[in-house]
Amino acid sequence: MAAFDIVGKGVPRTDARAKATGSATYTDDIKLPGMLHGRLLRSPVAHARILNIDTSRAKALPGVKSVITGADIPPVRYGNWRLFPNLQDEYALARDKVRFIGDEVAAVAAVDRDTAEEALGLISVEYEELPAVFDVDAAMRRGAPLVHDEVEGNVSLDRKIRYGDVESAFKEADYVRKDTFTVQAVSHAYLEPCSSVAQCDQDGRITLWTSTQVPYIVQCLLASTLKMRENDIRVIKPTVGGGFGGKMELRPWEFCAAFMARSTGKPVKFTLTRREELATGRRRHPMKLISKVGFKKDGTLLAKDLKILLDGGAYNAMGPTATFLCGNFGAMLYRYPAYRFLGLHVYTNKPPASAMRGFGAPQSLFASETQMNLAAEELGIDPIDLRLKNAQVPGDEIPDVATISSCGFRECLENVAVMSDWKKKRKSKKKGYGVGIGCYSFISGGVFNWFNTQYAFSTAEVRAFADGTVHLLTMASDIGQGSDTVLKQILAEELGLAMQDIRLTTADTAMTPQADLGTWGSRVTLMAGNAVIDAARQIKEQLFGAVSARFNLNVIYDLECKGGRVQAVGKPERGVSFGEAVAMVQKTNRGKALVVRGSYTPRRKGLVTPAFSFGAQVAEVQVDQRTGLVDVKNMWTAHDCGTVINSKSVEGQLEGSLHMGLGYALSEQLVMDGGVTVNDTFLDYKIPTALDMPHGVSACVPTYEPEGPMGAKEAGEGMVSPTAPAIADAVHRATGYRCMDLPITPEKILSGMKNKG
Amino acid sequence: MAAFDIVGKGVPRTDARAKATGSATYTDDIKLPGMLHGRLLRSPVAHARILNIDTSRAKALPGVKSVITGADIPPVRYGNWRLFPNLQDEYALARDKVRFIGDEVAAVAAVDRDTAEEALGLISVEYEELPAVFDVDAAMRRGAPLVHDEVEGNVSLDRKIRYGDVESAFKEADYVRKDTFTVQAVSHAYLEPCSSVAQCDQDGRITLWTSTQVPYIVQCLLASTLKMRENDIRVIKPTVGGGFGGKMELRPWEFCAAFMARSTGKPVKFTLTRREELATGRRRHPMKLISKVGFKKDGTLLAKDLKILLDGGAYNAMGPTATFLCGNFGAMLYRYPAYRFLGLHVYTNKPPASAMRGFGAPQSLFASETQMNLAAEELGIDPIDLRLKNAQVPGDEIPDVATISSCGFRECLENVAVMSDWKKKRKSKKKGYGVGIGCYSFISGGVFNWFNTQYAFSTAEVRAFADGTVHLLTMASDIGQGSDTVLKQILAEELGLAMQDIRLTTADTAMTPQADLGTWGSRVTLMAGNAVIDAARQIKEQLFGAVSARFNLNVIYDLECKGGRVQAVGKPERGVSFGEAVAMVQKTNRGKALVVRGSYTPRRKGLVTPAFSFGAQVAEVQVDQRTGLVDVKNMWTAHDCGTVINSKSVEGQLEGSLHMGLGYALSEQLVMDGGVTVNDTFLDYKIPTALDMPHGVSACVPTYEPEGPMGAKEAGEGMVSPTAPAIADAVHRATGYRCMDLPITPEKILSGMKNKG
Repeated sequence: MAAFDIVGKGVPRTDARAKATGSATYTDDIKLPGMLHGRLLRSPVAHARILNIDTSRAKALPGVKSVITGADIPPVRYGNWRLFPNLQDEYALARDKVRFIGDEVAAVAAVDRDTAEEALGLISVEYEELPAVFDVDAAMRRGAPLVHDEVEGNVSLDRKIRYGDVESAFKEADYVRKDTFTVQAVSHAYLEPCSSVAQCDQDGRITLWTSTQVPYIVQCLLASTLKMRENDIRVIKPTVGGGFGGKMELRPWEFCAAFMARSTGKPVKFTLTRREELATGRRRHPMKLISKVGFKKDGTLLAKDLKILLDGGAYNAMGPTATFLCGNFGAMLYRYPAYRFLGLHVYTNKPPASAMRGFGAPQSLFASETQMNLAAEELGIDPIDLRLKNAQVPGDEIPDVATISSCGFRECLENVAVMSDWKKKRKSKKKGYGVGIGCYSFISGGVFNWFNTQYAFSTAEVRAFADGTVHLLTMASDIGQGSDTVLKQILAEELGLAMQDIRLTTADTAMTPQADLGTWGSRVTLMAGNAVIDAARQIKEQLFGAVSARFNLNVIYDLECKGGRVQAVGKPERGVSFGEAVAMVQKTNRGKALVVRGSYTPRRKGLVTPAFSFGAQVAEVQVDQRTGLVDVKNMWTAHDCGTVINSKSVEGQLEGSLHMGLGYALSEQLVMDGGVTVNDTFLDYKIPTALDMPHGVSACVPTYEPEGPMGAKEAGEGMVSPTAPAIADAVHRATGYRCMDLPITPEKILSGMKNKG
Repeated sequence: MAAFDIVGKGVPRTDARAKATGSATYTDDIKLPGMLHGRLLRSPVAHARILNIDTSRAKALPGVKSVITGADIPPVRYGNWRLFPNLQDEYALARDKVRFIGDEVAAVAAVDRDTAEEALGLISVEYEELPAVFDVDAAMRRGAPLVHDEVEGNVSLDRKIRYGDVESAFKEADYVRKDTFTVQAVSHAYLEPCSSVAQCDQDGRITLWTSTQVPYIVQCLLASTLKMRENDIRVIKPTVGGGFGGKMELRPWEFCAAFMARSTGKPVKFTLTRREELATGRRRHPMKLISKVGFKKDGTLLAKDLKILLDGGAYNAMGPTATFLCGNFGAMLYRYPAYRFLGLHVYTNKPPASAMRGFGAPQSLFASETQMNLAAEELGIDPIDLRLKNAQVPGDEIPDVATISSCGFRECLENVAVMSDWKKKRKSKKKGYGVGIGCYSFISGGVFNWFNTQYAFSTAEVRAFADGTVHLLTMASDIGQGSDTVLKQILAEELGLAMQDIRLTTADTAMTPQADLGTWGSRVTLMAGNAVIDAARQIKEQLFGAVSARFNLNVIYDLECKGGRVQAVGKPERGVSFGEAVAMVQKTNRGKALVVRGSYTPRRKGLVTPAFSFGAQVAEVQVDQRTGLVDVKNMWTAHDCGTVINSKSVEGQLEGSLHMGLGYALSEQLVMDGGVTVNDTFLDYKIPTALDMPHGVSACVPTYEPEGPMGAKEAGEGMVSPTAPAIADAVHRATGYRCMDLPITPEKILSGMKNKG
């Protein structure tokens, strides 16, 4: 591996000071002259036909400037799956039917928020209530009410993966087990609720500032829903206070802000309440997972048959991707000679589930990792040994789906065993005490072009100046994960510059280069990073040429950008400062500025991702025998993220993942009752606090990902997955209760203990 | 000439609605959180040594956040003439000496403007007054006080032009006359006073919003004065309410806003008062012009010997350019077989003069056109006939200085004679009635690289999209002259698109391409226009290639962008829409966006300009015999601006020039008394009102400028020059009074009439 000057360091984040001092501008901080405030009217019923909407009283309220319903807007369905338009199933405002409690029915824009809120109460909607379905089994039952009239059986999509001879393999197996798991809906709980401000200029062009992960996707879908041209819409992402997958689609308030800014001629802002976010917002898919695995008695895996029912809620959202990824993750980590997957995406009358950190992995891996622990127990093999026996290695394939290039999974398992003193702790018989294990693999961006973009997946423009500075422009979107810092590090490293030599402009669809698909699936470091490197190398080619000419260097000489200079390798005196080299190129080009564009699009990387990360995690718990309360004492994680670009960021991501995984394991759950989300405040929706956080220790297993920028791949999203199965396994050791249905609540533990009792 | 679809039309200006509705954002409209307000302390004396400055009481005033003097800032001299650093003679705040009443001595930033103003009064400055000089003769006298200690005789610069044998030519002349003219200082009187807002980000980078004509120049000079790197400074030009040459330099408040934003960590705004603008601001150079001309008795010009003393005020500012241009304009319009020019730029203890609409031409042409009228009278030749006899024609040269390509001057003279019914009106003996003539030539941008830029003079980036839109980015600066509209028209014409297909981003040094030298010398249409065409042609090359391939066109086929399509000429069915063609190119480039940069730098165009415009103007006046008041009844103008890009803009420029020329001729003058500007309000400084405007008729003489975009050259700056000599000539016909010292006041007329008595 190359020695790096800046890559690998814990460089402070570029937004640290702005965030710490409160000067960072979030969308809701934007105030424009004459700005109106918007509010959404939401359906109070889970499933109904809209017979009539009377907005006249709302429109008559002084201060109300606009009231719109589905009848006022173009009847355009949208959704991220542009490649398959039949999967685009949403309207910005309901037409004919509402499909969940919270479905957007009308929008009001008024001179202030209170007036807008008051106007909502003056809109009369006449509903004809319809029978509703609230879980996948009910939805798939023959004769069940149809959430979408045109989708028979409420299954909007099935995805299959199959390779090897599953039937024969099971016949050969010494040991076969079949388990059913269920996992709950949880909220992204980003700290910044969704917010959007739109403004329409005198040419009719719209600028939308919005808290989003995907400016380019919002731009395109807003254009199609408004029946405008893509580039007559400009989407700007201000500082974003978290997304976690919950801000990666066009959303109704983005549409309404833009539509009403155009129709009123005034800027319009929508900012959601926390209650709206929790009660009606996107969430991680609840799923039912039925998994059958077969082993030889020595622990060798022979086959897996996995069926997953995704409770998609009322619309597809990112469900189709989650459906496929569940199947991919079901085949990851271990070598399954035969594998069969069926994923069904099922409509129910609930708020749509969609992408969320892990994107199919937390659910799928909770099932498969728990099942691995169950099998290990019954086969009498240590669960780490069982994993090592079957662990994927570099070059492994999921036929027609994915190829694994770099893979440090074995090393992660070995490392975490040592770190946690696994063998010893696992044997402990201390009352209420246990250690358990869970593992993960994750993607570094997706390669399946579901959005059907016509652009490269990531693009970076670099402008180099004679004063020794460069300007990096990219549509890549930092939503808090730290990509701005990482991309600057990559460019600084590649060009031999310091962080402060780089000006960065990101995530403005009019100003930054077309295009970047946004922030999801841990794609930014690898994809935007590769685009940055592509651009940097083009810059270097030109600088090297100028320096070669100036010093009349033999063509066999290699050159480098290092320490602010451009010079012959090993002969630094044959070189000039970076700025001087730029000036030379500029002179050669007779005054034209040195500007290049780099890009990255993954090719021949299967259907999933260019690179997989891996990791293994051990949880140590102490369970209160009387209350069933779980105290997670320690978490040890060994992970393989390829080259670490920013050590502090990786550490931060690890902590964040652990925190989110902890909530998923133990306390978080959107509790539904007949379509109503019961716990729609942060008092009732239980996110672990800082005091709940275990002591965490982690180690990076060194690998080099050939497809990644400087060898890097995903860090921070995959690690959300192993925590629930690891804790569940530890709780089982501590109490005898084996959780098959998240979350692991004290009630379930106590009840499980009694049953074992 | 080609037939155009959009060029030549009176397309409404892109900023019309924003300006008419008041929604346009000028710099002073910008309000940032925590913003401080700055004020400048100015010298109350014309010439003094600064012995001591005590800012302690000002600093102690509650609400004051920063007080700075020359001692607090880097001792860096600046000025636009980077090519000759010895001409850079200003500090942002005075060091050691003040040199005019109004010289900037200290700056205060406080929580509001009143507090800042109050703090100014608490700064104690101890001056040692020095003798001062207030006119060029006094300044050049032996033993005169030195405005700058290091500049002997107060002549900061001399410029010479010489060709032909002047002495011999005068000897051969039948008729020689020598006259002395003086012209006054006038104000740009732009409606928007100077205003600047600076903000410093966490990386120490500065963003400056400023009312400027030259974002790039401000960026560079701000960098050098702050000792920062150019690209760590971003200059953004919001809507500008006029400049006329008065906003084309780095100014002290721009520096102070940036410096104090950096030192306080808060945004800082400075907005000047009208009184500051009039009393201390830049102005058109007062000059003394001594001109000797020789003719054959048939009216053939033989020689000219011109000496001009420019009263530069306390600093060079743009004076060096004005000095040279005076000499150039002295040699324009007519064929002088021998010519000698000496221009001296003289320091005095007055506010610096600098560039102003016409840039040396109004002064130089007032002298030479008046002298032409004087000579015509004495030679007994009609002044238009005398001009026609000597008029420059295409291909004429000023050796080593300038080459005239397109030239419609003869046609202008013939045209204006017919339009105004010259022959008949000139003979009228009606009491107090007269018609008179004045002519002009002007530049279309300068070619002498006094700023020593390392970039192309103008640059344009064009991004073309599959939705049929394009995005034009350029640093070119619309300051009210309408260049945004004109550049869009040129691009639309070249690409066969409509105005609404083009998004335009301008004048932001971080986002728009490096570089453009700004708005001055009527350079934007020609230079930025040529850069736009260069970019458009690169786009077309790629589109044509894609369409050629798609339709398998014979290589001899020509293609065109027309009516939103890209097609074979004469075979429109072999073509696709513009957007489809872009998509094809993008596909060819495997997802890379279609982006190009075009540029323009004039080469082999002498020392002055790539293209000269011409014009002739006839004024008709009625002078009140009792009061001496001049009523300008009619103005006829024939002008040659090459291809008209926007007919409404040309018309508007003509009216604006006429208005400014009228004020210069009759009423405007910054009256100085011992270094004090006496008339520093719009009540006392007499700008003509709408009611004073004469009826104006104009005609464009059709020419095609080969170096101009689509044949265009300057329109709107040159036309400010002929008005004063034309009115002076008409007043002479009406009253017998021949004005040799502008303005033509009633007092002078009455006095002149009495003397003729």
